[in-house]
Amino acid sequence: MPGPRALLSARPTGHTQVAGVIGSPIGHSLSPTIFNAAFAECGLDWTYVAFPVPEGQAGAALAGMRAFRLGGLSVTMPHKAAVAAGVDALAPDALALGAVNCVVPHRLPTGEVQLLGENTDGPGFLAALAEDGVIVRGARVAVLGAGGAARAVVRALAGAGAADVLVLNRTAERAAAAAALAGPVGRVGLPVDVLSADLVVNATSVGMAGTPAGGQVPLDPGLLGPSHVVVDLVYEPAQTPFLQAAEAQGSWVVGGLGMLVHQAALAFGRWTGVQAPVATMRAAAEAGLAARPSSDVNH
Amino acid sequence: MPGPRALLSARPTGHTQVAGVIGSPIGHSLSPTIFNAAFAECGLDWTYVAFPVPEGQAGAALAGMRAFRLGGLSVTMPHKAAVAAGVDALAPDALALGAVNCVVPHRLPTGEVQLLGENTDGPGFLAALAEDGVIVRGARVAVLGAGGAARAVVRALAGAGAADVLVLNRTAERAAAAAALAGPVGRVGLPVDVLSADLVVNATSVGMAGTPAGGQVPLDPGLLGPSHVVVDLVYEPAQTPFLQAAEAQGSWVVGGLGMLVHQAALAFGRWTGVQAPVATMRAAAEAGLAARPSSDVNH
Repeated sequence: MPGPRALLSARPTGHTQVAGVIGSPIGHSLSPTIFNAAFAECGLDWTYVAFPVPEGQAGAALAGMRAFRLGGLSVTMPHKAAVAAGVDALAPDALALGAVNCVVPHRLPTGEVQLLGENTDGPGFLAALAEDGVIVRGARVAVLGAGGAARAVVRALAGAGAADVLVLNRTAERAAAAAALAGPVGRVGLPVDVLSADLVVNATSVGMAGTPAGGQVPLDPGLLGPSHVVVDLVYEPAQTPFLQAAEAQGSWVVGGLGMLVHQAALAFGRWTGVQAPVATMRAAAEAGLAARPSSDVNH
Repeated sequence: MPGPRALLSARPTGHTQVAGVIGSPIGHSLSPTIFNAAFAECGLDWTYVAFPVPEGQAGAALAGMRAFRLGGLSVTMPHKAAVAAGVDALAPDALALGAVNCVVPHRLPTGEVQLLGENTDGPGFLAALAEDGVIVRGARVAVLGAGGAARAVVRALAGAGAADVLVLNRTAERAAAAAALAGPVGRVGLPVDVLSADLVVNATSVGMAGTPAGGQVPLDPGLLGPSHVVVDLVYEPAQTPFLQAAEAQGSWVVGGLGMLVHQAALAFGRWTGVQAPVATMRAAAEAGLAARPSSDVNH
């Protein structure tokens, strides 16, 4: 018998099931690290790779997923809407959001493969909050941003029984469209509304390392205090400028890595039928972030 | 710094270049084992996976190769002819054989990807013979079979200066078509011609473990003697019934693993621009064969 190192280096083999993520750019994605750790932990003979698919080629990528018999496909920028338009069927979250972050292949009795588009961002967000002991039911929530992540969060918050979901965004039209996803509890908000909120969620990319807005905050921290729970979906750096400022104001802060891990854990369960090893996935994500050269973070 | 085990289990990452093989069935392919060992040996951040692509879907697989930006694609049964019809350009061997075993992506200045179809089976066969000290120039050769492997071998032998290339096959028409690939030195042969041959190549699948003809020989071994070099392209089992019988007749025998390794080594060079670590690839192939449960070999 070869030792564990030889076994590891000898994989993948011809039997290994392939899954992956499409996006552009994709090189800095933590998903391969997170999923490969989970497969190893569960003893599954799967491998997860990153495909740098250029914008406009989501349809060809889905055809490739079918031909290559991929066991699962994660979808990230800029393909979430195009994939929603290209799969055979959409789960309710993906349909409502017009965005897919996870494609699940279903083998039909005919041998054909049907591709189901799902969106695990919202449920992943809720799972991360639950893990941190944050109660959404009855909460007044201010969501900063109206892009894809914000929309998933707004819808999830309403589904989990938030009392109010206020969407703050520079463009009122986009804010209204996002707020509509919360149904009767959703509306467009103003910064001053943050004062009476229980939960504040940064769903913009402001503060993300390596972007023009890295080092900035999405909201005047003077509006925050000890009565607030502040969540930043940005996870790089782990301690964002916004979370640092919120903590200085006495708020309870929650980082964004939990949502990343939990949306992946839900995809893992859909694809494999196996309960995801969440702790292993989180440890892998943290190790992956820690292993990055600082040039990756700061450019 | 994580240790080597953690580093191995943390791969592939988002930066890892993906290559692979398409075929059906593909589970028993040794190619992932051979290529992954080579990438590791050369310190290349590549991974090689097997895609179980059903017959009739080679075109979709090529579209997938383009969309997924694969760094290389190996092609095996039943897709070699369909891929030859689907790539953007064919190298001379692939064009003459109407069969591709290796697709090389060329990035154009426009950002588009052009797919070049190559066939490294013939050159791989010659490299394996050269490694074993077998001289083709001036040799009289009898090739058993007229399928894809036989055709590649016949063309390669003629190109390397064989004096005669006789093709033996049950169907005379297919034998003639294969012999034509050798140009003026090619013709259809009969078993009795083996008596005057220097080199005898089994390019049928007779003797392959796990097939109906496993355990059988493709030619009456009574025709063989100490003046013959006998090559069997079947590599599983390593010692085929034909090679056993030939050895008993006093022939010099050469197994088929060398051709498998060398055709892969040539593809490796085309894709990566790096000299292939042939010894590592052969050791990985041998370890991969040895690691197979006997049920894999015998069913």
